[in-house]
Amino acid sequence: MAGTSHAVDISKISRDQQQTLADSVAVEEPLEIRLAYSTPEGRATRSISITMRTPGNDHELAAGFLFGESIVRQAGDIASIESCGPAAPDSGNHNVVRVELGGDVSVDLGRLQRHFYTTSSCGVCGKTSLDALRLVGVEPLRGNDTAFDKATLTSVPGKLRESQATFDKTGGLHAAAAFNAKGDLIVTMEDVGRHNAVDKVAGSLLLGNQLPASGLGLIVSGRASFELMQKALVAGMPLLAAVSAPSSLAVQLAREFDVTLVGFLRGDTFNIYSGKQRIRHDN
Amino acid sequence: MAGTSHAVDISKISRDQQQTLADSVAVEEPLEIRLAYSTPEGRATRSISITMRTPGNDHELAAGFLFGESIVRQAGDIASIESCGPAAPDSGNHNVVRVELGGDVSVDLGRLQRHFYTTSSCGVCGKTSLDALRLVGVEPLRGNDTAFDKATLTSVPGKLRESQATFDKTGGLHAAAAFNAKGDLIVTMEDVGRHNAVDKVAGSLLLGNQLPASGLGLIVSGRASFELMQKALVAGMPLLAAVSAPSSLAVQLAREFDVTLVGFLRGDTFNIYSGKQRIRHDN
Repeated sequence: MAGTSHAVDISKISRDQQQTLADSVAVEEPLEIRLAYSTPEGRATRSISITMRTPGNDHELAAGFLFGESIVRQAGDIASIESCGPAAPDSGNHNVVRVELGGDVSVDLGRLQRHFYTTSSCGVCGKTSLDALRLVGVEPLRGNDTAFDKATLTSVPGKLRESQATFDKTGGLHAAAAFNAKGDLIVTMEDVGRHNAVDKVAGSLLLGNQLPASGLGLIVSGRASFELMQKALVAGMPLLAAVSAPSSLAVQLAREFDVTLVGFLRGDTFNIYSGKQRIRHDN
Repeated sequence: MAGTSHAVDISKISRDQQQTLADSVAVEEPLEIRLAYSTPEGRATRSISITMRTPGNDHELAAGFLFGESIVRQAGDIASIESCGPAAPDSGNHNVVRVELGGDVSVDLGRLQRHFYTTSSCGVCGKTSLDALRLVGVEPLRGNDTAFDKATLTSVPGKLRESQATFDKTGGLHAAAAFNAKGDLIVTMEDVGRHNAVDKVAGSLLLGNQLPASGLGLIVSGRASFELMQKALVAGMPLLAAVSAPSSLAVQLAREFDVTLVGFLRGDTFNIYSGKQRIRHDN
């Protein structure tokens, strides 16, 4: 993966010495996502997002972002994706991705602004965030009976770690991966942003016509927030496993939409916060 | 800090047993920030941000966010801050903060949209992100000669960790703190979002008329991204120390604006990525 790490000279200070040495840091650069779509007045192009990301798999990132925001519902909604703009002078990366939607795809960009905006008398709260998902047609995964063995689950963090090429160099990248019930990693992505790593995974599955991913779990290297839980749910993934802690709203979302949520997945122990019927274990 | 952790029943799975027990998770809830300001046509109120945050210090969060975005330049720009909206039914929190600006404060809300938008022929890239800061008048800290002893720096992570009340219960919160050259923590804040924890610190300093904080360093519990480096710089803080890795763009920003950037601050070792003249050490 060219361009995901960058060499810098640093001073390394330890108890009794100081060294000047060459080190690697994870690359962070802005990516602009432009959307071309049909309006009653003809085709329009709009810049809809600028996110700080680690270059690489930009097309998957753009597709996954649009899918997570429910602007794109299926791979067929996308006519083309291309990197454009001149190469950035400092890195050579093309930092603009243009996504062309099909002519018959209707777009509600207002959703990007409204997102969590208050629609009820309670003002803005956790409940309105969940209601906002229902409004865009996201449905609970109650019928999904995919099951994961305890031993399978506990094997996944090690595999994720092994696949993190850039993390080894920089210590600075989050990772996310989709894995099947046998514990095989299907797609693995790295990024300075957790949400970007997950968008890249979802985008890769979308472009490969593998969504909804009803037989796959999602693992993330850090914590499980509402946003990451939402991305797993929208992708139809019945399980989200985090190496670290979940938030209250991630737990609430998992329970209301019947997604299995696992946290603190370390060694051979983990916590199940929701949907334990999908975890098979002897004890 | 009431309302920062939330009790949930979980299943804890380990090598040879399963227990059902009560656990705590960090609270994550949306906060809407509304801004009231003068326009040529009279007073206007607009919802300008919804962020997922851990309740507590919401006024500081709102003030710090507005300051980081260069919408507010000094404490005197803010006439009042109040929590409003009905209490959320599921938590009892008031999840709307209304910030009233003084009548003579001019506001450029377009900046929130434009932010990193391309203004040069190179498209969007790391350089445009730095240029965007120059455009809003952020200046390098070249003249700042605050210095921190090595022993002071290495003492700060332990103090930060000790002050994290909610992390101890949930393992799920980031922390940020401002500290002086003696190593005393001046303000410590926790949040599920790293940027929120830093906004709360900056907002607290702003409301206490302590900005620019030219004699204080900022420590964060995780990684140092461009965004966090930017917040330290805008607050005039000459040093950002991260327990984990910095990104390439954080390093670039630190070097161009002459901020000291320390990473992997663990035990008695750390890396200096920029501005080593502010670190005093014997070896």
